[in-house]
Amino acid sequence: MTLPALADIEAAARRLEGHGVKTPLLESLVLNDRVGGRVLIKPEVLQRTGSFKFRGAFNKISQIPEEKRKGGVIAYSSGNHAQGVAAAARELGLSAAIIMPSDAPRIKIENTRETLARERDATLVRPYDDPDIVAGQGTCGLELLRQAEAAGAKLDAVLVCCGGGGLIAGISTVIRAKSPNTSVYCVEPEGFDDTRRSLEAGQRVTNEPGATSICDALLSPTPGELTFEINRKTLNGGLAVSDREVRSAMAFASLILKLTVEPG
Amino acid sequence: MTLPALADIEAAARRLEGHGVKTPLLESLVLNDRVGGRVLIKPEVLQRTGSFKFRGAFNKISQIPEEKRKGGVIAYSSGNHAQGVAAAARELGLSAAIIMPSDAPRIKIENTRETLARERDATLVRPYDDPDIVAGQGTCGLELLRQAEAAGAKLDAVLVCCGGGGLIAGISTVIRAKSPNTSVYCVEPEGFDDTRRSLEAGQRVTNEPGATSICDALLSPTPGELTFEINRKTLNGGLAVSDREVRSAMAFASLILKLTVEPG
Repeated sequence: MTLPALADIEAAARRLEGHGVKTPLLESLVLNDRVGGRVLIKPEVLQRTGSFKFRGAFNKISQIPEEKRKGGVIAYSSGNHAQGVAAAARELGLSAAIIMPSDAPRIKIENTRETLARERDATLVRPYDDPDIVAGQGTCGLELLRQAEAAGAKLDAVLVCCGGGGLIAGISTVIRAKSPNTSVYCVEPEGFDDTRRSLEAGQRVTNEPGATSICDALLSPTPGELTFEINRKTLNGGLAVSDREVRSAMAFASLILKLTVEPG
Repeated sequence: MTLPALADIEAAARRLEGHGVKTPLLESLVLNDRVGGRVLIKPEVLQRTGSFKFRGAFNKISQIPEEKRKGGVIAYSSGNHAQGVAAAARELGLSAAIIMPSDAPRIKIENTRETLARERDATLVRPYDDPDIVAGQGTCGLELLRQAEAAGAKLDAVLVCCGGGGLIAGISTVIRAKSPNTSVYCVEPEGFDDTRRSLEAGQRVTNEPGATSICDALLSPTPGELTFEINRKTLNGGLAVSDREVRSAMAFASLILKLTVEPG
């Protein structure tokens, strides 16, 4: 697999120009005072459809060749990825089929997905293990660096939520290329800190079964193949957070930052 | 009184450069579908301290001459204006005294405010009836026009919440100068639609006593003198909304737009 480079992310940013939202970089004096330093927040919850997923989906779908466009796209997701794919496809004039899990076992849904994609001649849009998706999510990192510079901030560390690892793979590629002294850490739910543990083990490990978390958007069983290939080289480490910490952060976000954020 | 012109608002934008937040312009496909047209949202709730008030306060305070700076600033407000003034003063290195109303009658607080300002040699920062405040709030309109153009949107109408009328006076000055075919309407709580009724009467009228509204930030008794002088020339009319409509809009903002907004 080819790893996306800075140039791919810059190309994605040009494709996204005029589509979706350049999310702002927010700063709260209350939060700065509490932490004892400057904290800058990139609220991707304000992105079209409420998450960063629109970035990768748009970058992927906008590159589907003409002869494949009438087949539309297909995606498997119960959440943010589905919404991002649907909105990007609509904006680009392609049909989208989304497979939502109900009680079916994961393997059956995956098989259905592959079959449907073949039968419909549709392009499968994966949630993270795709260089175009990673490059699209990386546009968030380009914006971040530009906005942090405009705010006169030197970035000591960047913390990014992590499920399959697509967003952090894109952002950390940008950071390594353009701000090498900035640390990058993934943040995962306790019990689902597969990327943190994989970084320590030097290879992809799987979460123990039976763990629960309110962060429904981040419950991937193991790091993506492509994304871990990137993240093992770009990340400084990982953090795991408890449901209690997540709830407290959500309340702070609503009361002080005025943002309604989901747990993940 | 001199009315602020477009040039004053552009000068305010240059002063604010690098301070506060350039709030994004958001668009929700869900909202567009529901309304049957494009709705662009300028979420000033993401501005530093959670409201547009930082814009005007920063523009005012940054122009205080050197010899008056050590006297600091003084403001009368229980809410957003107080927070905007305090944050702007802090960022500019001036001391700020804020008078908060408790049970004291308004007239007593106003007298206290004037006396305190004199005694402390402080600069009084009014919430809306000041050309520098109006010019600062107008920077929101400059951003809006630039962002709407980037989004490929022709603005048919701009709706702005209205208490004393500072924000809409600034924004409508920009719209009249740069986008003359766009209508501008003030939006006020039912029973506190003094600006709407003043526009119809052709002169400043006062609200009937006894009305109540959950929009605590918009309960001014009558339009500002300076702001109405502007708004009578720039506005196309006004709308009044019920508490029920406000609650429904707040729920929509939280669920779909991911923004925690106050009633006003």
